Formats: sequence, structure tokens, C-alpha cells
Amino acid sequence: MYAEVVAIGDEVLRGSIVNSNAAFISRALLGIGWSVNRHTALSDHSEELKINLQEALERSSIVIATGGLGPTFDDVTRQAAAALFSSDFHYDEEVASDLSRRFGPNLTSLKDQATLPVKAKVLLNRVGTAPGLVFHQDKQTLILMPGVPLEMQAMCEEQVIPFLLETFPNQGKFYQEVVSICLLPESSIDPLLRELKATDPHVQIGIYPSHGLLSVSFTADKQERIAPLKERLVAQFKTYVYPSVSGKIEEAVHAECKKRKKTLAFAESCTGGMIAEKITTLPGASDFFLGSLVAYSNQLKTSLLSVSEDTLKKYGAVSKETVKEMLEGLFKVTHADFGIAVSGIAGPAGGSPEKPIGTIWAAIGEKGRDPDIFTFRAKGNRQAIILYTTQYLLAALWRKMAGFN
Amino acid sequence: MYAEVVAIGDEVLRGSIVNSNAAFISRALLGIGWSVNRHTALSDHSEELKINLQEALERSSIVIATGGLGPTFDDVTRQAAAALFSSDFHYDEEVASDLSRRFGPNLTSLKDQATLPVKAKVLLNRVGTAPGLVFHQDKQTLILMPGVPLEMQAMCEEQVIPFLLETFPNQGKFYQEVVSICLLPESSIDPLLRELKATDPHVQIGIYPSHGLLSVSFTADKQERIAPLKERLVAQFKTYVYPSVSGKIEEAVHAECKKRKKTLAFAESCTGGMIAEKITTLPGASDFFLGSLVAYSNQLKTSLLSVSEDTLKKYGAVSKETVKEMLEGLFKVTHADFGIAVSGIAGPAGGSPEKPIGTIWAAIGEKGRDPDIFTFRAKGNRQAIILYTTQYLLAALWRKMAGFN
Repeated sequence: MYAEVVAIGDEVLRGSIVNSNAAFISRALLGIGWSVNRHTALSDHSEELKINLQEALERSSIVIATGGLGPTFDDVTRQAAAALFSSDFHYDEEVASDLSRRFGPNLTSLKDQATLPVKAKVLLNRVGTAPGLVFHQDKQTLILMPGVPLEMQAMCEEQVIPFLLETFPNQGKFYQEVVSICLLPESSIDPLLRELKATDPHVQIGIYPSHGLLSVSFTADKQERIAPLKERLVAQFKTYVYPSVSGKIEEAVHAECKKRKKTLAFAESCTGGMIAEKITTLPGASDFFLGSLVAYSNQLKTSLLSVSEDTLKKYGAVSKETVKEMLEGLFKVTHADFGIAVSGIAGPAGGSPEKPIGTIWAAIGEKGRDPDIFTFRAKGNRQAIILYTTQYLLAALWRKMAGFN
Repeated sequence: MYAEVVAIGDEVLRGSIVNSNAAFISRALLGIGWSVNRHTALSDHSEELKINLQEALERSSIVIATGGLGPTFDDVTRQAAAALFSSDFHYDEEVASDLSRRFGPNLTSLKDQATLPVKAKVLLNRVGTAPGLVFHQDKQTLILMPGVPLEMQAMCEEQVIPFLLETFPNQGKFYQEVVSICLLPESSIDPLLRELKATDPHVQIGIYPSHGLLSVSFTADKQERIAPLKERLVAQFKTYVYPSVSGKIEEAVHAECKKRKKTLAFAESCTGGMIAEKITTLPGASDFFLGSLVAYSNQLKTSLLSVSEDTLKKYGAVSKETVKEMLEGLFKVTHADFGIAVSGIAGPAGGSPEKPIGTIWAAIGEKGRDPDIFTFRAKGNRQAIILYTTQYLLAALWRKMAGFN
């Protein structure tokens, strides 16, 4: 069963908003084993939209569209869809009373929002005002939902997915599992993935790099097909496979800190607070995260972290000696169990032949033990260097805490 | 001149990643007056991709695609495009030496990434390894860029847009200008926007809120149409309109710090380092940014920032008194000219009837002067609260430095 996900609205085509709805709907469909074969974003010009929706319905047996259901002049999706299915409109009393109950009888858009195509099944909007619609006729199914993500998400989970399961039972055909891998380049796992692919060509394998992290996805029509391939990947790269539902390395660090009841602190220079930001974005950080000393200036490296002025003068801020002293200072100030200290050149200025842009020095340590001090070269522009360094160090910290290095 | 933006990759269709590239490219094209008539996301199955790219080229005179240019087995875009344009491959010495220079001669994927279609113009990738490609033949133009956003963004801005301007001069038909507004709700500017819309219906006006910031876009076929409407908006909300090319409030803070030669430091609790991260992501931060004391635990609020234990006990970490002492401590430690101190409840745990989730206390001050101390309520889930608070405070700092409050 193939489905196409459509976003309707010029604001999407102008890039004013990022179309996150398509990804949400795809994940929801994958969850019931359906595959999405295309995402499309279309203009809300009425005639164009009608033609393009017609095309989509010819391509895909199910089209799930979002946007253009509101009451303003540029919301034309209802009309276009009704025309496609040759449907008249009527005043839907159930929708009217639902809107009146939730927004009061004086809701300006009430009459408009309750005037709906006769041939469509109505999906009540629990969050906002625009109802969803399902046209289902002659092997063609067109599902329309509002474009506001929070309204769409509730409607999709609570009504669209149950509708699909009921109307098309046993149509789910796909399973997916994802393996998250850190600190290895794509090239180091590519040979095994090619081998696995040859082992069972019915399993689709995807590999997606993201600044020091890789996620490998296995998709197949049977769960049993995935297991042996996934196991071989995990077995071969065991100490680099981190546990994560979201794919985020900070999730693995969280889990390790909580499991081992260890506290954490950072001394950041070139990462500018991003390591702390990643850790604190996930809930529960306050259970183990003490804080981060973002010592961007040399003056703060000295006054906050007790890096000696001699060290800074002799070896520079981006050096083995400086990050070693930063880490020592960090432990002295915070008494954390584990810590990271990092200093590097994020660019675009500040590079030199000896220390080109992307040169990173870091120290990772456990209180009272000798730290690991190392250097690496982060690639890309400033933003990429900061992100890569952040994820690299969180991964290295996770491996250390998990006893893998 | 119409263009279609295509994302290639099953990870997009499965919803594993949100396709933000399409929005970025659309905005870049709109910036030179081009309209995008369709976004599409396609599977990276080789045969399907070829057919679908062919269709896109028949629909739209210019197709800009991202993704599938890497060296692994699931990267099939190069092959599909070369087949469409009947192009052989050759080893591109310029690309090889560029990759070797940036990643060293032992880069595993070097040979693969330097083997490119003869008929395509090559776009060097300044950030990562996969070069971009431009096929331009018989009124059909297909531009391929890597799918990693940071790689694509640099390539799009530095090479694709200049290529389009040079190859298709005077094709731009649309003009867009954007006004960035901080700290005002949508509802406060909506009445004026409706009025402006009525003044000239040929100007499309869009308003897009983003966690404490608003951007208002004006799009029209002539620049002269936009100017009078934009001027009225700017005049009415003058002290909330911040100067920014990117729409980022940190850009305005950077400009103000450099102009006034003032240094900056933060004492962050609930924002967890995000304020520092935003400031340091832009190049040139080291000219004025000293650092941030991310004092997530109460212990660090006391030891680093000299917040008294009594204050924490009596008023709590999220209080007027605590942020006042945090700011005082910050100035003492860093000697910065301007500073922000913030403490709040980002949730999902930690809320109470008196201090519900989203309660934020903050102090913004200039060295030696009385600070502004204030509270506000950030909306949404944890991530939204942290982001809203960060942008709110950077906006408040900018207004203070610019003399607007």
C-alpha cells in the first residue's frame, strides 16, 4: 500500500515554514507498516491545486494532505477536493455544535468551518477549528488535515491512523529498525553494509551521517528479516553502537549518568556552550548535570579554570597543556565525577599552518584519575566544526563511561 | 522562471529527517526573485529516481535536488542524473586535489567522490566531501547538491545562486523583503498588516512567528510596491524591529556589541548554555564575548556566582533575588560590560502552582548600573521554553544596548 503526503500552501513553497508535517505523517504511517513513496508541497492556487491533487491520486492509492482548510481567502483545499470528488456542500450540525461548544457560539469562522463536502467523512479537530476530511471512493482515498502541526498531529494519531487500520486491515507491510553508531566514518561500516545487503536484498539498508554520528536503518516486509542483519552490524561495531531512541548521543550520556549515578560538568571554549545545551535540552538533566564553564576568553580560562598565563602564552589556548589545566580547574570548581574540557579553532578566523581551522584539543576525565587528552580535526565551516566537536566529545564521554575505551 | 526543489532519500520519505533543505533553497531563490512551484521528496531507488527526475525536468525548467551524492551504496543520485543526461564519468583532478588538500590523501571516499559525470559543471564542497553538480542542456537545468544541510547551505549561497544569476540574468520576477520583529505577539501587528494588505492587494504579506520573534515578509512583482508598506510597519514598531539579514536576533546583538565596543557575559541556568551557543555560532564572537557560567546546579550558583545559600533557600532558584545575585556574581567574575542572568522552570518536572512550568526570572544589566529584573512566562514544551527564553533575552539585551528601553 503506497501513500503520498502532500503539503498545501504557498508559505511552504516560499520557504517561510519548514514542512515538518510530512515527516510526522511518514513516521506515523511507518509505525503501522506503510511506506510513503513521495512527499509533495503544492501551491494553494485553486485550479493548479485541483490538477495536482488529481495527479497525486492517480499516482498513489492514498493521498494525505495538510493545509488550506482554514476560513481565510487563501484556504482553498476543501473546494478543490470537493470538485475532484463531485461533492456538494452542506452545513454540518455536529461540527457546528462541536465548534460552538469549544470556542463559543460567536466564533467568526463557525459557519464557514461547518460548511463541508457532503461526500466526505468528517474528522473533528480537537485542538483548533478546521475539521479534517476523508474522501474515499473508487479505490481513491484523499485525507485532508489542517496544516498547523499540533492540530494535525492530534488528528493523525487519534483519527487518521485508526481509520487506515480499520479501512485497510492487514495492509501494513514494512518494519524498520535503526542502529545509532558514533565516532566511525561511513567508510568503515560501508563494506559490511554492502555485504549485508547482498545477504538479503529484500532488506533496505540506509546510512545517514550527521556530524560524527551515523544512523543505519533496516527496512523490510518481515521483522525476522531484519534481526540477523542488525545483529551482525551491532556485533561488529559493538563499542560504537550507542543506545538511543531519538538518535541523539546525549540520550546515551543521560542514560549512563543516571545508571551510574555520576555527575557531569564541562569546561567549554570553542563549543561555546553547545555541549551543555545538548545535555540540558533533554528532560532530567538536573539529576546529574552540574553546569558548564564556557570560558571563551583567555581571561576567563585563567580566572575561572586556573589555567596558568604561562601555559596560555607558551602553548596557546588550543593545546594539550591548556585543556589539561582546564579539566583540572573544572574538577576543582565543580567536584563533578566526569568532565570534558575542550578548546579549538572553529574559524573562519584564527587558523595557522600549525593549527589549522578545525584543530581541536580535548580532555575527558573521571575525578581522581588520569584523563584522556587527545586532538582531532573537525571538518567543515564554523557551525559544522562546533556541532561535530560537540557530538564527538559526547560520544567519547559516553564510551568512557560505558567502559568502552 | 519556475523551479522545483527535490529532496532525494528514503530517510526523508520515512520521516527520519525533516526536509529543511527545501525551505532554505526556496528562500534563497525568492531572494533573487524566483518562484518555486513545487517541492518533492523522492525515493533513492535508482530506477524510480531516474523516472521521477525526468518528470520533474519536464514539469519545471529548473530542478534543484539535494541528497544521495555521498560515497555509500545508497547514494545513487549522480548515476541517475548522468543517465538522464547521457553522460560518462571521469576522474576530476581538481576535485581530487581539493579533497586531498582538505581531508588528507588517505580519504577513503576520495576516488569515489572525485569520479564525476563529464557533462556536469562541478561545485566544490567547502564543508564536506561530496561535490555538487550542474547539468545544463537543452533548456533543462538540473542542479544537485549534498543533502547535509550545512554543506548544502554553503554551496547554495556561494555557488548555486551566483550561477543562476549569471546563467539566467533578469529572470527574477518577484521581490521579497522581510522585517524582523522581536518581543511582540502576532496579534499586536495583525491589525496593521490587514490594513496594509487592503492598501495594495498585489503585495503578498506573510507573518511567521518563531519563539519570541516574528518575521513579516512582503512579496510583490515590483520592489516599489513593497517600500511604502514596509515603511509603515517599521515606523509603527520601530524599537522592536531589529537589524538582521538571517532573521537571527543574535546577529543584532553581535552588531551592537561591535559598534559600541562592549563585552558580554552570561549566567545561565534554565537555558543551559543556549544563549552562549547562539552568540558563538556566529563568527567574530570572540571579539566581545567573554563566556557564560552555566550554573545548572544550586551548588554552582553559590560557588561560581556567589548566590547566597540563604537566598536560594528563602526565595528559590527561580526568583528575582536569585537572578539579581547571579548577575552581580557574573559581573564580579567576568568584568563584562553587559550581562544576562536567567533562571526558570523548563519542565516537564519542577512546576508548582506558584511557579508553573515556563516561569522565567531574568536580570539584564550594564556594569555599574542598576539592572532590569523581570519575569515572564514561556509557552510550550521544554525545548520551546528554552528557545523562547533564549531569544526573548537576546532581544531584550539588544533593545537595552540599542537604547530602546
